[in-house]
Amino acid sequence: MDILFHATGANPEAWLSAFQQAIPGASIRVWQEGDTAPADYALVWKPPAAMLRGRTDLKAIFNLGAGVDAILQLGDALPPGVPVIRLDDAGMGIQMAEFVAHAVLRYFRRLDAYALQNTDQLWRFLKPFDKQSFSIGVLGLGVLGQRIIEALRQFDFPLNGWSRTPKDLPGVHCYSGQDGLDGFLRASRVLVAILPLTPETEDILNCENLAKLPRGAYVINVARGAHLVEADLLALIQQQHIAGATLDVFREEPLPPVHPFWQEPRISITPHISALTLRDDSARQIAAKIQMLQAGLAISGLVDQHRGY
Amino acid sequence: MDILFHATGANPEAWLSAFQQAIPGASIRVWQEGDTAPADYALVWKPPAAMLRGRTDLKAIFNLGAGVDAILQLGDALPPGVPVIRLDDAGMGIQMAEFVAHAVLRYFRRLDAYALQNTDQLWRFLKPFDKQSFSIGVLGLGVLGQRIIEALRQFDFPLNGWSRTPKDLPGVHCYSGQDGLDGFLRASRVLVAILPLTPETEDILNCENLAKLPRGAYVINVARGAHLVEADLLALIQQQHIAGATLDVFREEPLPPVHPFWQEPRISITPHISALTLRDDSARQIAAKIQMLQAGLAISGLVDQHRGY
Repeated sequence: MDILFHATGANPEAWLSAFQQAIPGASIRVWQEGDTAPADYALVWKPPAAMLRGRTDLKAIFNLGAGVDAILQLGDALPPGVPVIRLDDAGMGIQMAEFVAHAVLRYFRRLDAYALQNTDQLWRFLKPFDKQSFSIGVLGLGVLGQRIIEALRQFDFPLNGWSRTPKDLPGVHCYSGQDGLDGFLRASRVLVAILPLTPETEDILNCENLAKLPRGAYVINVARGAHLVEADLLALIQQQHIAGATLDVFREEPLPPVHPFWQEPRISITPHISALTLRDDSARQIAAKIQMLQAGLAISGLVDQHRGY
Repeated sequence: MDILFHATGANPEAWLSAFQQAIPGASIRVWQEGDTAPADYALVWKPPAAMLRGRTDLKAIFNLGAGVDAILQLGDALPPGVPVIRLDDAGMGIQMAEFVAHAVLRYFRRLDAYALQNTDQLWRFLKPFDKQSFSIGVLGLGVLGQRIIEALRQFDFPLNGWSRTPKDLPGVHCYSGQDGLDGFLRASRVLVAILPLTPETEDILNCENLAKLPRGAYVINVARGAHLVEADLLALIQQQHIAGATLDVFREEPLPPVHPFWQEPRISITPHISALTLRDDSARQIAAKIQMLQAGLAISGLVDQHRGY
């Protein structure tokens, strides 16, 4: 079995060694410009178009992440008929749950404000927020969104969820579709974005939608930078409609040094670390899926390229 | 039924009204100096000795908090034979769980360090900590300690617990007694103090014990300020043995403006807000216990005055 590998920004040696261990019989090579030798599978993260164009010999392309926006943007460079498989959870769900639970608890318990008082050497009690009016709205109810909900549930937050198609989750007020978005936003004091990036969801966090959040709302984006119209968020924060934002993803990464977000203390910036792809977990998951494909079995994570995720 | 009330630092009117609603038949009065008229119960937080001295007419003294150190310090001013009842959870457990989960996730995900980078406009990836070596040690396994453990469990942290007498909690490596303390400390990367304050536990977080934590450990104190020898913690932080501390309680509160903790950015200070006594929950709980006592039934929360909690 021949496997092509390319992962932008990653250390190829560590990945090759993880895959070699997980798929002992395979011959795995790092793709080089001009390599058109036969291959059975491709393992990729943000691959160049030239790697995949015309590669109808592939039985599947495995994306080394849950979000497939970068690969689908290759458009007709993607070989027709070759399935694209995204990672299932692979350790990302719990990391997302940790990151979002931290941000939600920080806002709910006003620990952002207490940290500022700390710097000012100020010992002052701040009136707590009422939990019943501190609803958390999770925009995107896939594996990761549901894992976030699970983490928040045990703290008894009122929970809202929104998905493209209707879902039913116990203890969650579920909204769906374009028609449900308005009600979802108006009911959510904290908005957690964990959507796939598709043409329909790009710019979804724009002025019109963000303004529907209740005054004093918080925004947490752990999805993709292109979901958010950054100038709109900044304006709503400056107008004090939005009280704060925790952003792990940006339209341009690294966030440019001149970006105004750096100057806004109500925005917490992290360098796209909310959920790292865990090498060994991912390699094991992909190895198992290759075995299943070889045996003619159905696997999870098959991307609907029309839908976009 | 006559009830005496005194709560240092609280708004008596709001409490009286909550109790009046919870115990409709009772006559509740705020204790005043010189008031020796008969009473059946006392509801107190940090009461003056004169309020309780010689009050053998009381059927029980209800403490408006889980920690009874302030009332037991009254010593022989406490009327002999009158039971002291502490609050059970009454909404404090979940608050403690929120506060501690936030602090643990902040340290584990290095969000303290990312916040500093944020201020410096620095986009830089920090190597994540390994969860298997990030054990959380909960010092004190009462109702509140167990609720904290429950919150941490879902994030899959390795968990240690220490209690005075042996306990057995699923998924928790339990240590107990003086003999177990050493092993507990050496195995815990994060120490969460949620002990009752007794003569045995005062100063338990001293140089000798804190130095047994692994290098790079974190300390979270949500119990009482007198558990911690503050100068010892500061020295160990400055020696970089302890990487950071989240302190909600202090030997002197408010923390004096000249206290060196204010100058140490690795110490996060909050003004004793990790778990507030919730008025309505507490009033309902105490009302229910009074009814049970009146009916001759056993109640929870009876303080062992010799043991100290």
